[in-house]
Amino acid sequence: MNARKIPDIIIGRLPVYLRALQRMADMGLKTTSSQELGEHVGISAAQIRKDISQFGEFGKQGTGYSIEYLIEQLREILKVDRIWDVVVIGAGDMGHAVVNYQGFNDRGFHIVAIFDNDKEKVGHEIGKFKVEDAETMIERIKSMGVKVAMLAVPAAAAQAAADQLVQAGVRAILNYAPISLNVPNNVKVQYIDPSIHLQRMTFYL
Amino acid sequence: MNARKIPDIIIGRLPVYLRALQRMADMGLKTTSSQELGEHVGISAAQIRKDISQFGEFGKQGTGYSIEYLIEQLREILKVDRIWDVVVIGAGDMGHAVVNYQGFNDRGFHIVAIFDNDKEKVGHEIGKFKVEDAETMIERIKSMGVKVAMLAVPAAAAQAAADQLVQAGVRAILNYAPISLNVPNNVKVQYIDPSIHLQRMTFYL
Repeated sequence: MNARKIPDIIIGRLPVYLRALQRMADMGLKTTSSQELGEHVGISAAQIRKDISQFGEFGKQGTGYSIEYLIEQLREILKVDRIWDVVVIGAGDMGHAVVNYQGFNDRGFHIVAIFDNDKEKVGHEIGKFKVEDAETMIERIKSMGVKVAMLAVPAAAAQAAADQLVQAGVRAILNYAPISLNVPNNVKVQYIDPSIHLQRMTFYL
Repeated sequence: MNARKIPDIIIGRLPVYLRALQRMADMGLKTTSSQELGEHVGISAAQIRKDISQFGEFGKQGTGYSIEYLIEQLREILKVDRIWDVVVIGAGDMGHAVVNYQGFNDRGFHIVAIFDNDKEKVGHEIGKFKVEDAETMIERIKSMGVKVAMLAVPAAAAQAAADQLVQAGVRAILNYAPISLNVPNNVKVQYIDPSIHLQRMTFYL
């Protein structure tokens, strides 16, 4: 398997399959088919078989996929068979919401620190964290070796914060601000963009 | 054009194309190619041509797409050539963040009210809104004729709130809670799931 050869569009679907499979496992199911999985995620069975076959032979004709095995394989492919430390930048409403979010459990991520450049916010408690001074951010992230960050700052502050994250060695940034970030080629950015999801639904109204 | 015939996976890519085209327009660009658009969104040129051709003939061989025209057409297809009123349920950290979010401008959505079932929060101001009592939610949404909602309540409260939204006539729900919602077939649900985006990036680390 060579990461460079798999189109990004396929990689983007794997977490969606993984989430659906984990829900099936939570319901006590043991096996599934590309047909059934397709109905859960709104993707054709043929596409699912094609996507999954990029990584090897996981299913058997007639018996379908073992849910547990496919989960295990997808977690390994996506590298969430381990726990990634994550820093949160921005201790406003969104930063609070992100730190208190319960949806990272068992998904491969663990928040380790939150930073803000507002001295008024530094030292305040959010859940089990104390907000740290953004001035210390680069050194702290370097020393912790953190590679993943969630950016929850206002749009006007997002590019400067992203530059600092890159300097600190972060390689994956999830950006909540409604702004496109410029980062080097070896840094990945994803966007939380509620309008994209809303537009996907209005088509059907 | 028949909405039933277009696979959901294609519909899901159109808002991504629209966002990229709007960014190009903001930069002053007039025309683009499926190749260039593909580089912006990480999707192959062939796939983009195939997706867009589902809806008609928008580009000319050799001259590419008019960005303005394609934006106009995509907005019409996605029905965001109009403004949709949106209600927000939940006035916690996430509700605050959503109401104050600047990224809905020019995307087709306009928040009109926010509700919470915590009497302590009712009447508090968030931006230009006063938090309204969730007890009045169904009647208020019905009387306003709102069809789109953002659900920013804790996971434990999300299904009950979704049931009320459905009862109020809402047909599209953007759910921020880390829980899968059960809704009738004629109601669409999308999920804001940061883990999905994070997992898409860890593959490359």
